[in-house]
Order: sequence, then C-alpha cells, then structure tokens
Amino acid sequence: MKKVYLDNASTTPLLPEVGDSMTPYLGEFFGNPSSLHDWGDVARQAIDTARSQVAALIGANPEEIIFTGSGTESNNFAVKGLALAQQSKGKHIVTSAIEHFSVLHSARTLEKWGFELTQVPVDKYGMVNPDDVRESIRKDTVLVSIMHANGEVGTIEPIKEIARITKENKVVFHTDAIATTGNIPVDVKDLGVDALSLAGNQFYGPKGVGALWVRRGVRIMPLLDGGIQEGGRRAGTENVAAIVGLGKAAELAKRDMSARMKQLTQLRDRLIKELPAQIEHVTVTGHPQNRLPHHASFCVEFIEGESMLMFLNMDGVAVSSGSACTSRALKASHVLIAMGISHELAQGSLLCTFGLDNTIEDVDYVLKVLPPIVDRLRQMSPLYSKYLKASKGGK
Amino acid sequence: MKKVYLDNASTTPLLPEVGDSMTPYLGEFFGNPSSLHDWGDVARQAIDTARSQVAALIGANPEEIIFTGSGTESNNFAVKGLALAQQSKGKHIVTSAIEHFSVLHSARTLEKWGFELTQVPVDKYGMVNPDDVRESIRKDTVLVSIMHANGEVGTIEPIKEIARITKENKVVFHTDAIATTGNIPVDVKDLGVDALSLAGNQFYGPKGVGALWVRRGVRIMPLLDGGIQEGGRRAGTENVAAIVGLGKAAELAKRDMSARMKQLTQLRDRLIKELPAQIEHVTVTGHPQNRLPHHASFCVEFIEGESMLMFLNMDGVAVSSGSACTSRALKASHVLIAMGISHELAQGSLLCTFGLDNTIEDVDYVLKVLPPIVDRLRQMSPLYSKYLKASKGGK
Repeated sequence: MKKVYLDNASTTPLLPEVGDSMTPYLGEFFGNPSSLHDWGDVARQAIDTARSQVAALIGANPEEIIFTGSGTESNNFAVKGLALAQQSKGKHIVTSAIEHFSVLHSARTLEKWGFELTQVPVDKYGMVNPDDVRESIRKDTVLVSIMHANGEVGTIEPIKEIARITKENKVVFHTDAIATTGNIPVDVKDLGVDALSLAGNQFYGPKGVGALWVRRGVRIMPLLDGGIQEGGRRAGTENVAAIVGLGKAAELAKRDMSARMKQLTQLRDRLIKELPAQIEHVTVTGHPQNRLPHHASFCVEFIEGESMLMFLNMDGVAVSSGSACTSRALKASHVLIAMGISHELAQGSLLCTFGLDNTIEDVDYVLKVLPPIVDRLRQMSPLYSKYLKASKGGK
Repeated sequence: MKKVYLDNASTTPLLPEVGDSMTPYLGEFFGNPSSLHDWGDVARQAIDTARSQVAALIGANPEEIIFTGSGTESNNFAVKGLALAQQSKGKHIVTSAIEHFSVLHSARTLEKWGFELTQVPVDKYGMVNPDDVRESIRKDTVLVSIMHANGEVGTIEPIKEIARITKENKVVFHTDAIATTGNIPVDVKDLGVDALSLAGNQFYGPKGVGALWVRRGVRIMPLLDGGIQEGGRRAGTENVAAIVGLGKAAELAKRDMSARMKQLTQLRDRLIKELPAQIEHVTVTGHPQNRLPHHASFCVEFIEGESMLMFLNMDGVAVSSGSACTSRALKASHVLIAMGISHELAQGSLLCTFGLDNTIEDVDYVLKVLPPIVDRLRQMSPLYSKYLKASKGGK
C-alpha cells in the first residue's frame, strides 16, 4: 500500500544528513561537554558549532542561544522564567487565545502563583490584532507571549507590529516560533522580539532538543537548576548528539529554505484548492494568504475528525486532527473555538502538513481516497441526515 | 598513545546494543507517539516497552515511570514538584549537605518561594546519619530528599533506614539514585522511598533522557506544562530514540549487573589499594566499604586537581576532579568540604570512575603515569615546599 505521511507539524523525519551528523556523538565522541579532558573538549566543540548554526538560522548571537530538551521546555522556560525574573516590576502577562498548551498552561501555572493573565482574541482566520495587544498592556505587564505561527491552522501572526508595541511599552516580548523556525525566514532582529522558542523536530532535526533565544540583557530565571551548563541558565548534561543534529538541521534549513518553501507551497496550494472543490461542505481554516507554506487545514462538516483519521490511516495516509500534544485528549481544539468555529464543526478538523518527502502524487492520492471516506462517514452521521432533511425541506 | 577513559561518573559511553536499539527511531520510525496513526503507534509502543524495561530494573510499576530529559530534570521535577504539590501541608524540606546541585539548587529555589530548608550533615566518609534526618523532621516537613549514592566520593547512603523514619513521620521521601541505578541493585520497594531519579548516561544509555519514578498515589506538580504526555505529568514530544535507548540500557544492566559489579570492583579495589601505596600523601575519600563498585576517589595533597587532570589528559587518561556539572566552576567541592576536608586538601581531588571497557592494564597505566605527574606538580607547589621545610625542621 502507498504510504503518505502528511503530519509534519506533529514531527518531521530526520534528514539523512542530520542523522549522519549525530552518529559519531552516539559512539566514539561520547564525552560530557563539562569534562576537562579531550573527550569533553570534542563534545564541547560540537555544541559550540551547533550553537553557531542555530544562531545563524535566526540571525542571533551564538551566546544568546540556550539549548533545551524540547519546544515545550523552551516555552515553559520562557513564559515562567521571563515572568518570574521580573515579578518585582509587576505580575501581569498577555498571551493570545490560540497559543500552544505549553504556553497557555505555563501561563495558568503563573496564575496559581499570583500572576494575572490576559488572553487577546483572534479573528476568524486565527489572526491576532496588534491593537488588542496594545490595549491589553497595563502598567504592571511584564511579559507578552504571542506565537509566530499557529501549528493547527497555519496562520502567521503580525509579530513585527506587536513587537513595536511591546517596545514602546518596554514590555518583554516572547514568541513561540516552533512552527516557523526552519520553515520560513525567522530573524530575531527583524521580528524585534526579546525571546524566541524553536524545536528540532519541526524542521527535520531530532526530537528531544529545542532552543530558547533570549536577547542579551534580558533577565530570565532558570527552569532547571543545578550545574552551570548553558551559562548557568539551563542545568543538566547536554544532549550532545541531539544538539549536533539540531545544528545540522538549522544549517540545512538556512541553505535550502527558499527551495523548500517553493516545493511545499505547491503541494499545499493544490490540496487547499482541490479538497473543497471535490468534497462538499469543506472549508479551509486559517488565513488564506499569511500561512505556513507546508500547512493545509480544513473543517469537514458533519463528521468526526477522529474517524476520518482512522480511515485515512487504513489507506496509508497519516494526517492529524489538531496539535499532536492534545490529539489524545479528544476535545474540540481551543484554537478553532477561539476563531469562532462551532464545537460541531471543529470536530471535523483535518490537518495535512507537508514535508520534503511529499510529492504531487501524494496530494492526488489523498484527493482520491478521502472523498469515499467522507461519504461513508456522512452516511452514518445523524448530523448529516438532519442537514439533508432540513435542506430538502427548504426546497 | 594509550587512551584510558576513567570518567564514567561524568558520562558512560553507549553500549553498541543500546545504540543499535535507537537507530530505527532516528530513521524509519520517526513518528510522534501522540499521533493517532501507524507512525505514532510504532513510537508509542516503543516507549511502552522502554517504560517496562526501566520499571523492571527498579522493581516498579511501568505506569509509575515518568520519562524526563535528564537526571537534572528528574531532580528538579522531584524536589520542586513534590514540595509544591504539598505546600498546603507545610513548607519545610530536608536534604543532605552533599546532594548534587540539581537537588541543592532546586531546594534553594524553593527557599526563594517561601520554603525552609534543613541540610543534614555527613560524617567524614560522606555518610548521612539517619538520626539526623529524624531530628530534622518537623510538623511542617513535606519532603526529604537524600541521594542514594554520591557521585563524587562514591558513598552509598542508608536509604532504607531513612525511609523507615520518613514513613513513621508520613513525610514524602525522594532519593536521587542517578549514581546508583543501573550500577548496583536498586529496588524501590526494598528501599521504601516514594520517588526516585535516574539517568540514562550513568549506565551506558544515552544522554538527554532520565526518568522519575513516583509511587502511585503521591502527588507531584508538573515542571513542564503543556500536552498530556506521560499521563499529564511531563509535557513535550517524547525523545523516542533516547527513551528506547534508556530502556535497552536498563534491560542490559539488569541482566549483567552482578558480572559488571564484580569486574568493576576488581579494578576499583586495585587502584584504591595501590595509589596510596605508590604515592605519598594520598588519601582515599568516601566510605571504605559502602561505596559504588566503579568508584575510586582520592585527595592528593599539596597539588591542584585541575593541573593533575591536564597532565593525565596529556598522557591519554580521562579522570575528573569533581562533579562534571561543576567541573568548570573551579570551586572546592561542597561534598568534600561537608565531609570536613580542608579547602586546601579538597583542591587535590581526584576521581577515577571505571566502566565496562576498562581493564586491569588501564589501572596499571594510571599507576605508571600518575606518580611522575604528582612529583612534578609538587616540585612547583609552595605548599609542598612549606611542608618539606616543616617536616625537616621537625626532625
């Protein structure tokens, strides 16, 4: 059977060059970077190289990069660490309603610790209005955290505009750029943010590694206390092989970015154009233009996304119905709800996220196998019967 | 030149079987365990297997194992998470003076958050007296955290005796078993603890992965908020390959434990016997009997451990002068100071930690190359001149 992986937002495969770069550090070069001998030196130098590679990808200084164990850790570290480091100035933070749970739940934890949280809304495309951010800022606001792009609907947020506002108000601005870094150009100076999260497994690097960039001079409280790794900001023996892989993935992403974007946009655009044309009652979610190049998301009316996933899987196609981190929670996506989509419609959420291995034949395969699946599920759907009855009655 | 790696307490190399077990999960089986399709299923099943392997190593139930990104994360999670989950009961915690910095500094962070900390002392062998723990427990004590063995001096602590006391007093007891798990028998039921930290790179597993075992029914507050991975207790996409490697390392450690201990004890005993015999003014640190089988530690009087390391490295020998996490901090070890060793003597700390690749020839090589290094360094040592003058004057 044909196998089509269209769930690259959940995780990308490793590029072979990335895997190859890691191998020596799982073998011969196994030293602890903190050790004061040759074994340690080799590992430390490898981390230095990776730090430069990651910094180059986002236009940062290498010493501003802090390696972490995941994108989730980067977001926890940023939201909690930046807020706690400034709590003498105030205890109010601002996020959007559609942040990843690693930001939202970190903010909830801060609420338990006495912080106040304002969540700015989004429009029907999942777009934050910078004016809402401006209005949410108070005298005691110490942190704004708005994502660069949303992994569920692909919408790219107006980070530069928001950064101008936070700068005017002297509020620290963190952006969760996990969905964007390595996939579209990300330049911390151009964006104007103060801190930025990224993760290896979003751009053909390994799992188990992420990074937080923090602008020099911005204070942050460590999430992991202990040794003096990462300049005393993140304790723990470094995951050398994964860090090396992240560095290599960053180097390749920088080198190939425009070619990749061109390839993926083509696949995405075909699916976004053809799926609603070939299946009735399918709407595209997210922004029509400002969206990730590899990201196509839909709501398929009258059916459950879950069941659609299962049947697609039986046909060899991997897709998603929401964020991987919440896909086992079986709740309607908070992102879709915040965009004003009904609970009913949000159940039929479908995410197809393309990767470098995909071809136009993969798109055509999905366009071939999905319509009969949707038909079959709608035959069994009480909602669909109700709709048919109502629409016949209307005639 | 001969290469002798005697720094296995800093990090062990991967066993080839461990590396082989990881390879598929860095390639073909790259799925996100949270994904609801075949790619996700394969990854999830691999994690389930690893969870059982780790649980079997420490006599636990698989669902009590929470995978983390490092031993340091496990310790931060345990100390902060267990204390915060119980803060309504009280805000006093107890550790020993010789804990790893990931425990000590986590406790310091809790102090900033309004907790009180009691550090029980150790004797000259680095041993905690259970009676001191008993006396330190107050009505508002919610957590005791004492390490199973110290990675700098190898001393194994009387955890069972301490567990009896914490149980009597209904206080949650966490032990940092990072130095012991996989190296000596560790059974959570036998030890009687409530939570236990372990790390992959201490027993021939990969870096970037650890675990925290928490007894069923014991409440803990997550350190990483976000998705519902690890039963909602540790968010973030799982580092599948590293977790698989940890599982394999656990399986091998369980299978080969007694043979390994026998091999390593032989090497350790030879060095502990011969080094003080062949070099004057060398004392063994840590407990004479209750110590890790692969762990030999010394104080070499009148010289700096740092310089000794450098010269040994030039002869191809990797050793350490303290915890890897602090080896770049160049301070006298808090462990040795707590044992009543003077700052001066603590400077000459030397740790040789054996691994499965080592042979008796390695020990002999160290016994050959070290004495001239020590001689040379003492020639340049003002402390040694002073000592010589005083001892001649005494004659």
